[in-house]
Formats: sequence, structure tokens, C-alpha cells
Amino acid sequence: MAGVEAKSTALKMLSENRVFGGWLRRFEHTSPTLGQLAMKFAVYVPDATQSAPKVPSLYWLSGLTCTDENMSQKGAVGFKYCSELGVAMVLPDTSPRGHEEIPTENDSYDFGTGAGFYLNATKDPWKKNYQMYDYVVSELPSLMQNEFTWYDAAKISIFGHSMGGHGALTIGLKNPAMYKSVSAFAPVSNPQECPWGKKAFAGYLNDPEKESGEYDTCALLKAGKKHPNPLMVDVGTKDDFLTGEVNQLLTQNLESACKEAGQDLKIRYCEGYNHSYFFMTSFLEDHIKFHAQYL
Amino acid sequence: MAGVEAKSTALKMLSENRVFGGWLRRFEHTSPTLGQLAMKFAVYVPDATQSAPKVPSLYWLSGLTCTDENMSQKGAVGFKYCSELGVAMVLPDTSPRGHEEIPTENDSYDFGTGAGFYLNATKDPWKKNYQMYDYVVSELPSLMQNEFTWYDAAKISIFGHSMGGHGALTIGLKNPAMYKSVSAFAPVSNPQECPWGKKAFAGYLNDPEKESGEYDTCALLKAGKKHPNPLMVDVGTKDDFLTGEVNQLLTQNLESACKEAGQDLKIRYCEGYNHSYFFMTSFLEDHIKFHAQYL
Repeated sequence: MAGVEAKSTALKMLSENRVFGGWLRRFEHTSPTLGQLAMKFAVYVPDATQSAPKVPSLYWLSGLTCTDENMSQKGAVGFKYCSELGVAMVLPDTSPRGHEEIPTENDSYDFGTGAGFYLNATKDPWKKNYQMYDYVVSELPSLMQNEFTWYDAAKISIFGHSMGGHGALTIGLKNPAMYKSVSAFAPVSNPQECPWGKKAFAGYLNDPEKESGEYDTCALLKAGKKHPNPLMVDVGTKDDFLTGEVNQLLTQNLESACKEAGQDLKIRYCEGYNHSYFFMTSFLEDHIKFHAQYL
Repeated sequence: MAGVEAKSTALKMLSENRVFGGWLRRFEHTSPTLGQLAMKFAVYVPDATQSAPKVPSLYWLSGLTCTDENMSQKGAVGFKYCSELGVAMVLPDTSPRGHEEIPTENDSYDFGTGAGFYLNATKDPWKKNYQMYDYVVSELPSLMQNEFTWYDAAKISIFGHSMGGHGALTIGLKNPAMYKSVSAFAPVSNPQECPWGKKAFAGYLNDPEKESGEYDTCALLKAGKKHPNPLMVDVGTKDDFLTGEVNQLLTQNLESACKEAGQDLKIRYCEGYNHSYFFMTSFLEDHIKFHAQYL
């Protein structure tokens, strides 16, 4: 039973729910990385933590407008497979929240609140708080390791949806030894070339031309970043962000970049599915089982 | 492929999403039963409708404060089992909406909007629109039969959560030939004796003492109503509405009433689960497979 609860008072538990034979616990903590803001995240803890000394963890990154709660509410079936496979799931927020007001922060759904793009901002006024890359890659894993005795820092993987798929792919490619496997649903694959990404890079980065390559899956692949295991990617054939007037996903660029780089890519175009959580939830089983192979 | 779309213009399709190998379609229609109000409901249509001439349907009744959308969003995994078993799911709203304002209608979460209690109101001003029993038992099944060639009126079952569990049990006991099987998550089992039920009956019914027995599972069982198949009921052991200061569920009264009436009851107390959709979604698989046996 050891280690199910957080060890220190750094984490304040906000709620706890039994679901699919495990516990979903939501926490609040103060984040040094994000300028001492109070941040919320959730952890799904399978009952395997009560018997195994260590269990692996899968990090989930949500998309634009989401919080740490969207996956729990709309994709709770994922916890069924985590429970069966003895894998924990860690669910961070998508941006800092609650800091001193920045003009324009809440003006649009695709920039500012709910739209941290999993990067480290270098431009004022964003750079003080918008450090989601470091938060996800460094602070949160350290916090997990410090707080939970069952947490196995040597066995973690990462996946996400849309902007979160972009986060998972870029973070995974830059840290292939840390993340054993990487997958994405409808990822924003080449943000340097799509309106969502151009807006984010222009807003958060001092010199988008120089800096944005660090946060673009296709650019990272071109620069030689690779993951030893296949990247798994699913996209719906009726995804408006792929097939509509504006192509935000640029999935074909991901395919080309992987091919050129020799990066193994397991990609599926899912007939009839769109960009919603209905798509994502339908294929969570496949993704979680994919990750479990490597964990 | 015949019959996937609605036949007439009585139904306006509001949205359609591919999910778990089937289609979730949301419709609006004008309801004569509810005083000509525009009502929304959803239907999950498994791909079995494209090959089988007829498929069975499972009606889902949600609880207090819900709309037709809660189950789709938080319990979408249910569609996975519907898809696998070739069963459609019909998801009505929990009350009339959008009628001329009634004072007090939106004053509380447990009466009025979102709280139709699946009964036919007899008291002014509610009786004009609050006829959810007839809407669920008569109007919606007729509409389904008229609109969808795949709909099999001879093969329907019903289940629900909390107030919707009350709806499923009372409707199923009163119409055992129509509904092949009945199940409930954390049902309000004896509304005549709990605050939620007393408030609803006093508000909607002219003579609660005389009329409420029609809408109380325990009273119906005492009056000789039975279902030929077992009733399946799950309740969480950490359900605040069962274990808190106010017992709204009165599950023990359901157990006694079934025992006295000789009604077969498959009841489980699910260790650690509360009243939320996290509980319900964790056991949807068992419920849908239970119903599929009888459909």
C-alpha cells in the first residue's frame, strides 16, 4: 500500500474518484517553473501500485482550450487499459493559469490561456510564466518522482491530441532516452507552416525563425532528431483541421519528414472520424497498448 | 445502407460523430407530448444497421442536471460495447426545455429544468410540459420506429443513472413486455421516502399521496408489478447519496421490496466507487452485456 499518497505537503489533493479499478486523483501545487503559479494536474493510479514496487507512467498532453480534466472526463476509458496493464497516467494542464493578467491572454482560443504549445516562451510578457516545455519535461517528472514511491522514472512514455500531439512528438523526439515511446492523435505536425503554429511562435518567441525549429516535429526530424521506436499516429479522414480550407495538421509533411529521416512511423487514417474526443477515445485502447509494449 | 438516415423531416440532425465504429447522431424535433417544445436527443447507431435488417435498442436515462449529452461525453465507452454487440443506444433529455418561463423552474438543481423525474405532471403549471414519462415510453419509441427502418420495436431495453435509474426501474416494471431488460446505476429507489422524490412529487403531482405510487419502484413492487428478468443494479460503497447524512437512494428498501415481491435482483455494491460518471462508466460494459443477453 506504500506510496499511493503523496509524500510531502507540496501536493494538495483536490479530488479523488474510483474509476475502472484504480484511483483518479487531482492535485494542486506551486510551480517554480511557471513563475510560482498554482497549477493543477491529475494522476490515474492503477491498483498495481499497491503490489508492484514500481509502475510505469504515461503522460497525456491535451489540445487547445483543454485543461487537465478533459481527458479524464471524455477519455476515461483510457483508465480501463491503464488499470489492466498496470500503467499510471499523468495529466498536466495545457498552459499556466491564474497569473497576473497579460493583455490579450484570453482573447483567442489558440493563444495564451489553454494554448501553451508545450514550449518555453522567450518573449515578454509571456516568458515569465509560459514555460510549459520545462514544466512537462522537467518539473512534473521530478515532482512525480519525489512524491510517489511507486513512480518509475525509468519507464515513462508520452502521448497527446492535436496541440498535445505536437507536444508529445516534439518532446519525445528531443528526449528519446527519457520517453520509451511516443504517440499522437491528430497532431499539429509542422507548426512552422500552419496558422496555429505561426501565431504561437510569433507570439511566444523572440526570434521565431531561429527558435521555432526546437518545437516543430518536421524541423526536428530534418535536424536529425529520431526516436528508436516507431511513432504511432492516428488521424481521422473527416478531421476538419486536415481536410478543411486551412490545414493545421499537415500530416503529409510528417509522413515525408519521417520517410526522409528514416524514422519509423505507424500512421493510420481512421475512416470517418473527425478531430473530436469521440475520435480520440475510440482509439485510446490501441495507443495505450502500444505504449505498454515499451514500458 | 437503408435506414441509417431519418426518413422524414420531423427530425433535424444537429451533429454527427464517428465513435467506436458507429455513428452518434444528435437530433431536434418538436414534441407534441411536451407541449410542442423543441426537444433534443441522440442516437448511437452501430454499423450493424448497415447489414442487419433490424437492430435492438437500449434507452439510457440520465440523472439530475444532465442533458442528452452527458452520457455521450462522459460514458462514450458504452458505444464501444453497443458497436461490438450490434445494439443502438437512444439518449433522451431529462426534462422539457425552452418553454414559457415558469417561476421557480430554474431555482434548484433537483426540480424543474434537468429534473423531470420521468413522470407525467398533473399539477399546474408543470403539467403542460412536464410529461417525461409519456415522452420516453410512447413518443420517443414511436418516433424511432417511424424514422428508422433499422429500429426494432420488439427489442428494446432501458437503463439509467440516479434519477435516470429511478426512471428505468419504474418504466421497466410498468412495461415489462415492452422492455426486455432493466438495469440501473445508483437509482433513486424509493422516491416517496427521500427528499429528492418528496420534493418532485409535491411539486409535479396534484395529490402526491395517491399519485406517487406510480413513480416509485418500491411502491410498484409492493403493488405487484414485476419484471420477468432480473433487475441489475450497481451502487458505489462511497456514494454520498447512499452513505451521507441524507439517504436519497434507499437501496436497502429496494432490496427488501424485491425480496418480498419475489423480483429477481442482481445487485452489486462496488467498493470505493461514488455517485459520479466515473462510477457509471466503469461498469457500462457489464450493463450493456447484461442487456444484450435479452435483446
